[in-house]
Amino acid sequence: MIRIDGARLLADLRRLATFGRFETGVDRVALSAPDIEARHWLVERMREAGLAPRMDRVANVYGRAPNVGRAVLIGSHTDSVPKGGWLDGALGVIFGLEIARAAIESDERSPVGVDVVSFEDEEGTHLPFLGSRTFCGELPDAELAALGDRNTALASGLAALRDQPEPSRCDPARHVCYVEAHIEQGPRLEAAGRRIGVVSALVGIRRLRIRARGQADHAGTTPMAMRRDAGMALFRLAGRIDEMFPRLGGPETVWNIGQIVLRPGAANVVPGDAEMTLEFRDTDAAVLDALERAVLDWIAGRNEERAGVTAETIARIPPCAMNRDLAETIAAAAAERGQEPLWLPSGAGHDAMVMARKVPAAMLFVPSIGGRSHDVTENTADADIVLGCEVLAAAVARMRARALI
Amino acid sequence: MIRIDGARLLADLRRLATFGRFETGVDRVALSAPDIEARHWLVERMREAGLAPRMDRVANVYGRAPNVGRAVLIGSHTDSVPKGGWLDGALGVIFGLEIARAAIESDERSPVGVDVVSFEDEEGTHLPFLGSRTFCGELPDAELAALGDRNTALASGLAALRDQPEPSRCDPARHVCYVEAHIEQGPRLEAAGRRIGVVSALVGIRRLRIRARGQADHAGTTPMAMRRDAGMALFRLAGRIDEMFPRLGGPETVWNIGQIVLRPGAANVVPGDAEMTLEFRDTDAAVLDALERAVLDWIAGRNEERAGVTAETIARIPPCAMNRDLAETIAAAAAERGQEPLWLPSGAGHDAMVMARKVPAAMLFVPSIGGRSHDVTENTADADIVLGCEVLAAAVARMRARALI
Repeated sequence: MIRIDGARLLADLRRLATFGRFETGVDRVALSAPDIEARHWLVERMREAGLAPRMDRVANVYGRAPNVGRAVLIGSHTDSVPKGGWLDGALGVIFGLEIARAAIESDERSPVGVDVVSFEDEEGTHLPFLGSRTFCGELPDAELAALGDRNTALASGLAALRDQPEPSRCDPARHVCYVEAHIEQGPRLEAAGRRIGVVSALVGIRRLRIRARGQADHAGTTPMAMRRDAGMALFRLAGRIDEMFPRLGGPETVWNIGQIVLRPGAANVVPGDAEMTLEFRDTDAAVLDALERAVLDWIAGRNEERAGVTAETIARIPPCAMNRDLAETIAAAAAERGQEPLWLPSGAGHDAMVMARKVPAAMLFVPSIGGRSHDVTENTADADIVLGCEVLAAAVARMRARALI
Repeated sequence: MIRIDGARLLADLRRLATFGRFETGVDRVALSAPDIEARHWLVERMREAGLAPRMDRVANVYGRAPNVGRAVLIGSHTDSVPKGGWLDGALGVIFGLEIARAAIESDERSPVGVDVVSFEDEEGTHLPFLGSRTFCGELPDAELAALGDRNTALASGLAALRDQPEPSRCDPARHVCYVEAHIEQGPRLEAAGRRIGVVSALVGIRRLRIRARGQADHAGTTPMAMRRDAGMALFRLAGRIDEMFPRLGGPETVWNIGQIVLRPGAANVVPGDAEMTLEFRDTDAAVLDALERAVLDWIAGRNEERAGVTAETIARIPPCAMNRDLAETIAAAAAERGQEPLWLPSGAGHDAMVMARKVPAAMLFVPSIGGRSHDVTENTADADIVLGCEVLAAAVARMRARALI
């Protein structure tokens, strides 16, 4: 029986938050000095815990359980967004550290151990999922070098790591599965009064850049009928999206217009050029296809109008289902602790999405107070942090036992 | 009979365009070195024409007809917007110069002369209508000094003029009326195939700054029903304006949303704060009131929604009718030349708006090729420039004769 030490878990999380501390959060972007210092500290904590740790050339920190041929891999990332929160990523890594440590401390001597990983740059400061994609062999050295040629910040960050060992790799013969705990980053657990979330799937993301080209004209002297107003063309599309998407989407579909620019951008000039981004997410690729088609059809249907609209799909990330058996194992571990879990999709991307391409993967969420994340106000109640780790530990125990069958 | 010299008129316009030349236009903002140099040149040209010219402490250049107690005042401005066109303002001033010069050269010896003025900063680089408002006594020295305290560019520009004479003033006992020729700055004359426009009124302008406050949230993890999307609140208002304004406005009403900002402005963050400007113009203040009320009522009616919207009226310029007799005099002069004039409102502000508060005022428009203005592509056919000046000269002759009755 593995026993989580809640006080030790919280102390490690708080110590990690001192690296790159910014107000009540952290500013610890990938490959920055505080990020690398935090990773050196993590290596030491893993060593003290009895793991065999290494930080490799892409700054992934991988702690290998001793004396076992197979292991459940627990992980997440310790890099942050700029001026971000203290728990995003860090929580899942320290859960892994605590569970691996508790497993080594316990009496049980199972041939299936607990490995731990902190991936680099999940947040995409330089390259989204740099760490997990490297770990999964999706970024060969040559490709990474080519990326560095176009991205000097990435290149100089990696150059500083050139004396570190070769990247650690995912090994499906060893890694029986991957589990990741994370803060929800949304308001749903809190609103539902639940303390444990089980992730059914990570949403697919489609992002369109939509542009209208009209003609900039004096807004006093140009009659309405003679205008080619690029801004109004996009406002009309925004209104149409507002009408269509609730009908065409599923119950979990979300969409957002987060950016719009009108040019030249003066109060008294009719916008001659306008651009906005539209993003939508769902766990069902067919829903994403239907929404994209609706936007493109609307655009095609108004070619006769004065301001021509075009759309370019600039991101297309497919939905990623979590392993159903593993997710149910987490739900069962929660129920064992008297917690009815909330099943929900993850609206954000996570390293689990990359890992799921190599090994069975699952995710557990803990509540985010006020739904806040990517901000210094990000937080989770201490009791919810400890409970989340206990449930994950119980789930991992079941996964290790199952791997023996 | 006054005879316009078309070649001399065009040569003066082209010479004036060499001051601050920028590509095919001019960059001659108020109080800049090229603006002041152009005004010194204008003083010399006025002197050669037989006028008594002076450039005063606000850089207005006023040329007084000799040996007369009364005069028709013709004017406009020789400052430009940054990277503007060669005709905006300059055209009306050089029309005045040519007509005054031709009047002095002619045999007629009328007790009603032709005075000419180039006002400073009509374009509002430092203070809109600085010149005409000073000329009309609306900007006492103390007020101008106080403005300079808050605007160092204005203060240093005026400091360089401190040895110039006291400002010239409008004198209703002398100035029987004010007439201003200007490029249309819009496409209506060209579209109608007319060469002379008679301005019925200058539109009133109302400008609102509209702001929505919601909450910035992760656009992937926050369900639609829990969002407080400030951007969508403004998109909905834009859609409502698009529906309401054509119904509530008159046939000449124009409106524009030329600026919008979403904050924080990331594709994957729900806008927590959004701001846009809405401007509308009409010659009827009651129409402006109805439109403003419709926007404010819509805003008040959705206070229950998640993103609160507020509006602030940041500009409120009343409409200004032109003197009907003077306008009909211009129309009659056009008809005499075989031109059927187009009666139209001016959608832009002009010095005539300020002058109309002191003396009867009227405006004549010449066509703008492609409706372009405030841009280096601004242009008018040479033949239209010369015709416009001839029509204005004929109208001024009638005004001078009428003043004798």
